Amino acid sequence: MTLKNVERPWEELHDIIASENLTTLQTFLETLGPTETARAISRISGDDQNRLFALLTPADAAEVIEDVSETQAADLMEALPPKQAAAIIDELQSDLQADLLGEISSENAEAILLEMSPEEAEEARELMAYPADTAGGIMIAEFLAFREDRTIHYVLERLQANRETYARYHVQYLYVRDREGRLTGVLRMHDLLFPERSRRLKELMIPNPLCVEATATLEDLQAFFDEHKLFGVPVVDAEKRMLGVVLPHDVEEAALKQADRQYLGTSGIVGGEEFRSMPLALRSRRRLSWLSINIVLNIIAASVIALYQDTLAAAISLAVFLPIISDMSGCSGNQAVAVSMRELTLGLVRPHEMLRVLGKEAALGLINGLVLGILLGGAALLWKQNPTLGLVVGVALMLNTLLAVSLGGLLPLVLKRLKLDPALVSGPILTTVTDMCGFFLVLSFATVVLPRLA
Amino acid sequence: MTLKNVERPWEELHDIIASENLTTLQTFLETLGPTETARAISRISGDDQNRLFALLTPADAAEVIEDVSETQAADLMEALPPKQAAAIIDELQSDLQADLLGEISSENAEAILLEMSPEEAEEARELMAYPADTAGGIMIAEFLAFREDRTIHYVLERLQANRETYARYHVQYLYVRDREGRLTGVLRMHDLLFPERSRRLKELMIPNPLCVEATATLEDLQAFFDEHKLFGVPVVDAEKRMLGVVLPHDVEEAALKQADRQYLGTSGIVGGEEFRSMPLALRSRRRLSWLSINIVLNIIAASVIALYQDTLAAAISLAVFLPIISDMSGCSGNQAVAVSMRELTLGLVRPHEMLRVLGKEAALGLINGLVLGILLGGAALLWKQNPTLGLVVGVALMLNTLLAVSLGGLLPLVLKRLKLDPALVSGPILTTVTDMCGFFLVLSFATVVLPRLA
Repeated sequence: MTLKNVERPWEELHDIIASENLTTLQTFLETLGPTETARAISRISGDDQNRLFALLTPADAAEVIEDVSETQAADLMEALPPKQAAAIIDELQSDLQADLLGEISSENAEAILLEMSPEEAEEARELMAYPADTAGGIMIAEFLAFREDRTIHYVLERLQANRETYARYHVQYLYVRDREGRLTGVLRMHDLLFPERSRRLKELMIPNPLCVEATATLEDLQAFFDEHKLFGVPVVDAEKRMLGVVLPHDVEEAALKQADRQYLGTSGIVGGEEFRSMPLALRSRRRLSWLSINIVLNIIAASVIALYQDTLAAAISLAVFLPIISDMSGCSGNQAVAVSMRELTLGLVRPHEMLRVLGKEAALGLINGLVLGILLGGAALLWKQNPTLGLVVGVALMLNTLLAVSLGGLLPLVLKRLKLDPALVSGPILTTVTDMCGFFLVLSFATVVLPRLA
Repeated sequence: MTLKNVERPWEELHDIIASENLTTLQTFLETLGPTETARAISRISGDDQNRLFALLTPADAAEVIEDVSETQAADLMEALPPKQAAAIIDELQSDLQADLLGEISSENAEAILLEMSPEEAEEARELMAYPADTAGGIMIAEFLAFREDRTIHYVLERLQANRETYARYHVQYLYVRDREGRLTGVLRMHDLLFPERSRRLKELMIPNPLCVEATATLEDLQAFFDEHKLFGVPVVDAEKRMLGVVLPHDVEEAALKQADRQYLGTSGIVGGEEFRSMPLALRSRRRLSWLSINIVLNIIAASVIALYQDTLAAAISLAVFLPIISDMSGCSGNQAVAVSMRELTLGLVRPHEMLRVLGKEAALGLINGLVLGILLGGAALLWKQNPTLGLVVGVALMLNTLLAVSLGGLLPLVLKRLKLDPALVSGPILTTVTDMCGFFLVLSFATVVLPRLA
């Protein structure tokens, strides 16, 4: 068991950094484990963090970077001089390099790329060009590929000569290509051990291996690995030239990242993850960027109420029901949003199947609207003994629930087609529209029957 | 590329089921791929689903079950006669058996367990006893373990004799135990190939292998596999007796499931996942179970407004700001909830560190409250040219933001300590409290300065 219960490891870490004893530091970090490392690093001061990375070798520092979340890692790298950050990032696997540099502001990333070894920098630049949740964005650039006319002898010699580089690769397959660089075959590594050394790859390879294009989506890749129990799949461009390899572990990690982003986006944490170890000003600014849009949308929605001030003044009890209708419609609509998001992720619904979703949600919206309308209308009736008030409030909530549920179901599909992030955008649009309609419904009904309400 | 673009595969599936041609059916399902299988199965009628499983062999049916989500799978199994469901579930890996039976209503699960083969049923029952997000809940019961005094010869004989059973295991390691069943060592499978056959496991094994207890949490396991690049870790009880093996893939899947549950819970989808292929009545009932609690909480919160009807009648413009303050406080609070949830998941904060979180969030709540208060107060001032109205609305939003952010940050920690699900419970508690306080703040301030408002 290496799962320790170290209560305040950052205090010990601080002391060790102050003592500048590299061996003690290395031993300490090894005993900590990844979660505790992340926690300890996030709790020491920025000065301590910089001193820590100045002490560690780039390879050791890279291991620390692998333990912390990408957001934390990006912040740590941005705080270092570019040359030092570059030496550390050089030690990471290509997909992590690209992810990390993608999180860093573009000037800082550029400064670091200029200090990296030219090959690593070029690889990272190429990977950074692909969208995150595609095969291109998930693949690693570390793979073994040889021309099909090479002999086993040649391949083994090359492996031997480059063993230090290749030892870092998680290699299970050797890919075979033709003179134009097109993928034509694959061999398992242990297939190299038994045949005669003079034979050529072309004679031994499994021809036309399974592959995916760089544009394959995360869902495509999940389906691929669900179906094929492989240790990796080659990624090719439109001309079948090999670009990289996607590993199943990285697909699962990308899916987890997507799920986290979705959760955070829905909750209004935008522009990257937030940790409480970040500077207060940054946390506050990021949260406000979301809140300030919302307050404007809220003021717009509530201005509907201002149009009906006379009605409201005449039947003041309506004021109690306005926030209830606003909140309940939001709740009903968000349920529908979540179901659509989930069905989209699982591939159970396609963005163009809007009629299907509308039919299913409208039916449900009608039933739930009826139930909620009766509940709220009944509460209003009981409170004021006024059937008209109950009717106005109940019917308004019923209709608005129907609208909220239908709209909530459709929004993620529409936003996906418009290439907007449904997790981020669905909520604010939904609540603004349903608030406006909800206020309008209650207050316009009330205006019509005002003599019976007042 | 096996990623096909079949637009409406369920229509073809329906026709094939009607034709009752098993070979065509098998070929068709093989070409579909997991996502498309899940989509097609969910779109055919319940009758077609039952006919499909009656046609397929249990082994084929089990492969279909592995393609669909757990919720879908549970629904499909519940619709079949227990005997038939049992034959299919018998074919699944033990952790999937337990997960699936856990999703099925307990009477139905019991009926299926009685029809399963006794060993499989017992294994499933044992696994079902562990909480889902612990090593016990994630582990599989299929592993190879031999007593340490066995010879290589004996082990190879047994592997040969049971090769059909063992072929289904994803085996990378062979575990070694003493006479009391305690885990004492481990061997990689290929370590069996080279030594003399008369040697005993005790002489060859790596002693005292890494292991985890059945109570280890999902976060512990994620940290474990981040640190140790192993193909699996043995799970032991307090006496070090071996219970099962946790595979890294299953840990990642459990983490993904947890993230999905968190997202769905926050959005008010409770009692399991919802798919639009489910019966309307079930979908409606499940969503209402959440909404009906919320409407009661909403009515309670809004009743604060009723207490101040006279104030409101005298200064009717306040009614415009009540829904805004309610919604904005909810937004600010939910951001803090999301950050706490995330830090808890990543192990960056522990449930007892409430003072740290309170300090960090109160500071942020003060700043954001000030900004939002000035924005809303300014809007009120511009609209009505009444500084008192601006002051009342602005100060109320400022104080309520401070409260919402602090409470939102603390709630997940408190709920975690109380062993309640923070994803599910944080939202309703937060909005009820912040609504009540928000309404109270605006209206009680307004009552004090009423002459200047009216």
